[in-house]
Amino acid sequence: MNAELAEALKRAAADVEAAMDALVPVPETLEARVHESMRYSLFAGGKRLRPFLVMASGDLFHVPRAQSVRAAAAIEMIHTYSLIHDDLPCMDDDDLRRGKPTNHRQFDEATAVLAGDALQPKAIEVLLDPATDADREIRIALAMTLVQAAGAEGMVGGQMIDLQAETTSYDLDQISRLQNMKTGALIAWSCEAGAILGHATGAERAALKAYGLDLGLAFQIADDILDIEASPEEMGKATAKDADAGKETFITLMGLDGARARAAELVHNAVARLDLFGERAFLLREVAEYVINRRS
Amino acid sequence: MNAELAEALKRAAADVEAAMDALVPVPETLEARVHESMRYSLFAGGKRLRPFLVMASGDLFHVPRAQSVRAAAAIEMIHTYSLIHDDLPCMDDDDLRRGKPTNHRQFDEATAVLAGDALQPKAIEVLLDPATDADREIRIALAMTLVQAAGAEGMVGGQMIDLQAETTSYDLDQISRLQNMKTGALIAWSCEAGAILGHATGAERAALKAYGLDLGLAFQIADDILDIEASPEEMGKATAKDADAGKETFITLMGLDGARARAAELVHNAVARLDLFGERAFLLREVAEYVINRRS
Repeated sequence: MNAELAEALKRAAADVEAAMDALVPVPETLEARVHESMRYSLFAGGKRLRPFLVMASGDLFHVPRAQSVRAAAAIEMIHTYSLIHDDLPCMDDDDLRRGKPTNHRQFDEATAVLAGDALQPKAIEVLLDPATDADREIRIALAMTLVQAAGAEGMVGGQMIDLQAETTSYDLDQISRLQNMKTGALIAWSCEAGAILGHATGAERAALKAYGLDLGLAFQIADDILDIEASPEEMGKATAKDADAGKETFITLMGLDGARARAAELVHNAVARLDLFGERAFLLREVAEYVINRRS
Repeated sequence: MNAELAEALKRAAADVEAAMDALVPVPETLEARVHESMRYSLFAGGKRLRPFLVMASGDLFHVPRAQSVRAAAAIEMIHTYSLIHDDLPCMDDDDLRRGKPTNHRQFDEATAVLAGDALQPKAIEVLLDPATDADREIRIALAMTLVQAAGAEGMVGGQMIDLQAETTSYDLDQISRLQNMKTGALIAWSCEAGAILGHATGAERAALKAYGLDLGLAFQIADDILDIEASPEEMGKATAKDADAGKETFITLMGLDGARARAAELVHNAVARLDLFGERAFLLREVAEYVINRRS
């Protein structure tokens, strides 16, 4: 990985973790357990890709980090809630996530459901707080686009399609739509959020959102490839689950070489969306290359 | 029940159901199942008490019904999501709700989790839409107070405390706080929302919120009494569950007569909060009496 990108990812992770630490304290009251459960998953590590994308996009428009880190915390809360619920026994039934027990294994199923349920409103609360932006129109745009990306027309809808994948054969268009909803919507929001905070032009905002969608799909194809090629130790979670479940993936539909070529094409397209930002978008170009070349 | 109140409740239910019907259509795409699951629980009946409270509070300030019905739909979506998740096997493990199979019995657990997950962002989307109020400050106030009432500091926190009630003995203050968070917060929001939409004074808004909190606690005590006295057929769900689980309730702590007296006192207090609205608050006074005298 490019050294400057490695440094920027590290800094974004540290910044968003400090923000989340302040935003989700543990009270001394009887409901403390749900806060502990929220924090357990919020601080379980991870690449913090989405927070990085929010802040790197915001940097293009000189958005103060004190503001963009709040949008970064919000998207990481939504992402974390989705992981907690996806890992539940009734969903993917996973015991490990990033090498640690999943939330419901560490706490219990009921607490895991509640921790996810509470992360969702907390994310919206963070976005709507005046500290995120003094301009109400900006705050509403951030919250409105996030709930649309997270709901039945976005991430949850994608997860619904995914759940039916074990019994339904999808074609390439259907798999692409599934992944655009399940993974792409939140990644695209991360890029768009920086533009919203930066009072970007419509063209700039659309370019960043399109970059995020291409990147999200490339990320997912890379995930499918890692699911086959990487070990559970490298990934910190069970692998080869899709293949074992008989689900169609980009690889079953395109072959390994075809999937690799498609991911490279998507990254090429994603990077091309950034032309209008010139040299300033260096880190966003680098992270796109990293996404398909990572080993975990 | 007072005939005028019966008519008003019926109209509020019809209005909010029409609004929800328009707000949650079923698409022809692969994720249709999650929309069907959301609608199954949204249209499973119920008293629609919270929507009524939003609209009756809004009426005090001549809020157009086309606006207050949207806030009413939002709170009913949050309430419905909480019922779907509370009924899950890992929570209360209920098979019946309002005399019909619970969501996870009708669909499956994974779909029920997702339906609840999707109702939450949909509620926020409805509130933040300009159709709810042209004034952005009003929309932000509605959404912000709702996410605070629904999250770990409100409803979810109350549910977390409730989950621990089977193994922890709570005293009366703790049970009251639990119920204020779990049930009271959403009922208080319903009353406050009408005031927010109505550009009410601080005193008016505080009075309606306090009325809602008193009403919510009275409602919960009445529920505890019905849990003992009513049959499963009358309630449309399993009864005597708290007593069977060895949980403290208002009745185990105060006795049946003590609980009745406390509920009556709370209704008296709730009604007194409405003094500043004079005769206009007739329906809100009536519904408070109804809440502790209902048979289901």
